[in-house]
Amino acid sequence: MAQLRVALAQVNPCVGDLAGNAELIVEWTRKAAEAGAHIVVFGEMALTGYPAEDLVLRESFAEASRRELDALPERLAAAGCGNVTAVVGYLETDRVGPRDAAAVLYDGEVVASQYKHHLPNYGVFDERRYFKAGETLDIVRLHGVDVGMVICEDIWQDGGPVAALGEAGVDLVVAPNASPYERSKDDVRLPLIARRAAEAGAPLVYTNLIGGQDDLVFDGDSIVVGANGELLARAPQFVEHLLVVDLDLATGGHTAEGDFEGLRVHRRVLSTEPLPAYEPLAEPTISEPLSDEAEVWSALVIGLRDYAHKNGFRSVIFGFSGGIDSSISAALAVDALGPDAVYGVSMPSKYSSEHSRSDAAELARRLGCHFRVEPAADMVRAYVDQLRLEGTGLAEENIQARVRGMLLMALSNLEGHLVLATGNKTELAVGYSTIYGDAVGGFAPIKDVFKTHVWELARWRNAEAEKRGETPPIPENSITKPPSAELRPGQLDADSLPDYLLLDDILDDYVEGDRGYEDLLAAGFEAEVIDRVMRMVDKAEYKRRQYPPGTKITFKAFGRDRRLPITNLWREVH
Amino acid sequence: MAQLRVALAQVNPCVGDLAGNAELIVEWTRKAAEAGAHIVVFGEMALTGYPAEDLVLRESFAEASRRELDALPERLAAAGCGNVTAVVGYLETDRVGPRDAAAVLYDGEVVASQYKHHLPNYGVFDERRYFKAGETLDIVRLHGVDVGMVICEDIWQDGGPVAALGEAGVDLVVAPNASPYERSKDDVRLPLIARRAAEAGAPLVYTNLIGGQDDLVFDGDSIVVGANGELLARAPQFVEHLLVVDLDLATGGHTAEGDFEGLRVHRRVLSTEPLPAYEPLAEPTISEPLSDEAEVWSALVIGLRDYAHKNGFRSVIFGFSGGIDSSISAALAVDALGPDAVYGVSMPSKYSSEHSRSDAAELARRLGCHFRVEPAADMVRAYVDQLRLEGTGLAEENIQARVRGMLLMALSNLEGHLVLATGNKTELAVGYSTIYGDAVGGFAPIKDVFKTHVWELARWRNAEAEKRGETPPIPENSITKPPSAELRPGQLDADSLPDYLLLDDILDDYVEGDRGYEDLLAAGFEAEVIDRVMRMVDKAEYKRRQYPPGTKITFKAFGRDRRLPITNLWREVH
Repeated sequence: MAQLRVALAQVNPCVGDLAGNAELIVEWTRKAAEAGAHIVVFGEMALTGYPAEDLVLRESFAEASRRELDALPERLAAAGCGNVTAVVGYLETDRVGPRDAAAVLYDGEVVASQYKHHLPNYGVFDERRYFKAGETLDIVRLHGVDVGMVICEDIWQDGGPVAALGEAGVDLVVAPNASPYERSKDDVRLPLIARRAAEAGAPLVYTNLIGGQDDLVFDGDSIVVGANGELLARAPQFVEHLLVVDLDLATGGHTAEGDFEGLRVHRRVLSTEPLPAYEPLAEPTISEPLSDEAEVWSALVIGLRDYAHKNGFRSVIFGFSGGIDSSISAALAVDALGPDAVYGVSMPSKYSSEHSRSDAAELARRLGCHFRVEPAADMVRAYVDQLRLEGTGLAEENIQARVRGMLLMALSNLEGHLVLATGNKTELAVGYSTIYGDAVGGFAPIKDVFKTHVWELARWRNAEAEKRGETPPIPENSITKPPSAELRPGQLDADSLPDYLLLDDILDDYVEGDRGYEDLLAAGFEAEVIDRVMRMVDKAEYKRRQYPPGTKITFKAFGRDRRLPITNLWREVH
Repeated sequence: MAQLRVALAQVNPCVGDLAGNAELIVEWTRKAAEAGAHIVVFGEMALTGYPAEDLVLRESFAEASRRELDALPERLAAAGCGNVTAVVGYLETDRVGPRDAAAVLYDGEVVASQYKHHLPNYGVFDERRYFKAGETLDIVRLHGVDVGMVICEDIWQDGGPVAALGEAGVDLVVAPNASPYERSKDDVRLPLIARRAAEAGAPLVYTNLIGGQDDLVFDGDSIVVGANGELLARAPQFVEHLLVVDLDLATGGHTAEGDFEGLRVHRRVLSTEPLPAYEPLAEPTISEPLSDEAEVWSALVIGLRDYAHKNGFRSVIFGFSGGIDSSISAALAVDALGPDAVYGVSMPSKYSSEHSRSDAAELARRLGCHFRVEPAADMVRAYVDQLRLEGTGLAEENIQARVRGMLLMALSNLEGHLVLATGNKTELAVGYSTIYGDAVGGFAPIKDVFKTHVWELARWRNAEAEKRGETPPIPENSITKPPSAELRPGQLDADSLPDYLLLDDILDDYVEGDRGYEDLLAAGFEAEVIDRVMRMVDKAEYKRRQYPPGTKITFKAFGRDRRLPITNLWREVH
């Protein structure tokens, strides 16, 4: 048996920022050294950021990535942490092609390198577009402990690397990951990792990234399990964190090389002597999982914050309509960026009720953010008069939404804010939003939140405030009043849409579940409602295609996860 | 030796329209029968349309596709063409997963079925997201002739199906394809197909689809080559066409089954007796290739026409600025839909020159399309006054572009036209367009045409008109005047951008070629210009992400071909 102190560096890299990410790796390896760690494990492609998409195919980027990796060991030595073995995710390109790789940095050198074997090509992933699958496994002996590596999807698919390591023989498995957040994914991670540890016959160290990257958020939740599947340490979600844990490991003296499960195992000895016994740390961190709502809220906050900051924005601006969508977006924005960075704009038109104006002002008051009123009426009138839009229905309704969109863009041009679109998933699904109107913005924080879930989150956030003795951020009236776009007198969403509870229920099956007509009928929905909803969803594809990006929290968001053609004549006949 | 009359049914299916596409298949098989053909070959996934994207993963769609295929043989019999063997591309789903398939319909049955082996997962293709690779080859003996099948990418990749057929022994290879158009691709097709025919040791029948599907256009150009690579027949591009050719074929009596090149060959005998000798047709069609400009023009016309019609639009509306981009878009629109379907709108603001107003009117006069003037000034003033935008630079410039965008949307809402965005590839590359302004529209016909190419095409189209004794559609002044967005007094594109010849040259390397800084320097561009252009292109990603779809004509369009992250901190350091 031997002791080894392992550090999991759960960090937030920026895609493309090779220099900054290298700096991050040096900084956190130093922290690991200060904590007395012998080995530190970073997330998947931490050096390039993930997903780097087509950047991976650009020769100049791939070369720069390799140069940055090669420079790391010397930098780590110069920073005084060269004695810590670092496992770093990066981009390699060899004769075969680009590789999603992990390198072992030891004693001033890159001593081993392994390529991801299982390449996900479903959902939000297109890794077969980018990478060639790895066919080898590099096992290094560090202080007498045989350490194998696997990368992300290698853990999610049966067979392959983990099984091969188990058969060949390892004492420890380390895994860099870039696992995007989805509701309830963390419930699945632990059992999965536990199962793989058992398969490998060794403890498994699982480091994830954190932070937002366009539509995706990485939720951390880095984990260490023992060979028997026991949870030994768990990092919090959504924050950068150094998770440090002392492991008691076998020094199995494994020697088998060659082919296992279709992969070629190589071994390299770095150091054979086990470390002298040392006093282990007190109980390692096992973070309490967040509640489901807290988890979703955190993901939305991080997604928004990182999109704004990584793209150089210090502030955001959007419409405060007095409705629930803009209210929850405001609460998120303030949580993400602080009240001084949030600019709410009330843009009443002829049909705006008194309560929407006052609810908007009340929201701003409670949040302490910036607020102004810019009436839309004169601008709307200019269009209505010249084009004679009075009483024309859709054209007159839409122009109000569009005037507001243009107003926000003008203020953004003047003042430099990132404009947010506050649409929710339900309206995006059925096309109940005005393209170039309320759909205007660089980012859409609640794009992947169904309407019914918006209400739940709003209630939760207010309750959280009360627990902490703070003012609930969202005016109750905004939560309880019947939703309305207020584009014509007395308009209610309920005039144009099925009841939201029913609608979200169907959408859960049709969008998330990709079910067909027969299944929906069998699930108990009425034929006419099914028809109506399916038609609305299909017709709205072109609107979704031009919508800004927003944080994915569900299994199937309207992003890279769901790729339907706009020109699509498929209608179920029944 | 035996004779066989082969028909290539180069048709235009609609994605998702199973019933309509089945009808199309019946109709063209009947035409093939009337022409005396013994076998008719359709394009790849002609029954579902291509690419069907995530529809392929929807159980209800896959089942409906299979049902539609199963019903075909009986329908063909009922239509009196059951004696023609039909090779039909469709969607299969088996135990393994979805398959890009081709079926042989013979004598009232589906007698053979094969799955595409090489699945492209680069450029615009994501076939590994959708399909599982085929591992078998079904060779059928028809009138004594051994006929093998391959599908599209099977031809573009070395090894695999074609080589296997050659080794196992066939007398004829038929290939359904869905090969999207790209400039100069047709120059590559013939040599490629010739090479494969030689590899197979048999003539090769290559049927492509035609028509537009969102960003893609399929250009037809169906081809038959002899076993020695000689061109025997060639269909025109961009039109539906029945290409009929009599082949003199070996009846090799091949019997080998089993494993070839990792694929399992099966044989099935449909009919052994060669056909009695018959009088062959006169010279089969060998279409003259179109000139490069004519080819591009046709692709753009078809892309626009099909997007409009397949999505139920009868007319289009867009701004006539008097500039070259809207002029060429107008000429395309009239060629695509007829003058009565085209609605031009001049929306002068304070800074619009007299010549832009008169050039716009002149364009409409020459084309015979609809034209109106809707001044933008009052609407612009409403914003400028309330928000005090006078002299604020970008905000004041952008509001003019946005007012125009909203005007067009209002007219579209009132009158039901499809709005076109007339931006070109150069401005989309460098972000020289106003999001929610001139970027407004459901479709962008010249999205993939560089500015310098716009001028070339405009000159070509005018010259074509002259050749036919027609009025050149595009006013000369629109072609020769220095480009300007006219958003501020005396503004010229040249104030903000490098010279277009230089700019398009760099963009060709940076965008098309994905070259890095060093390569661009080596190519002779100046450091500052390289830096400036790269930065503009990278910063404009978020605008491109919200841009409407438009027809791909180049190697790397701003569509599915080029996937860069918006949040991207990569900057080459030098």
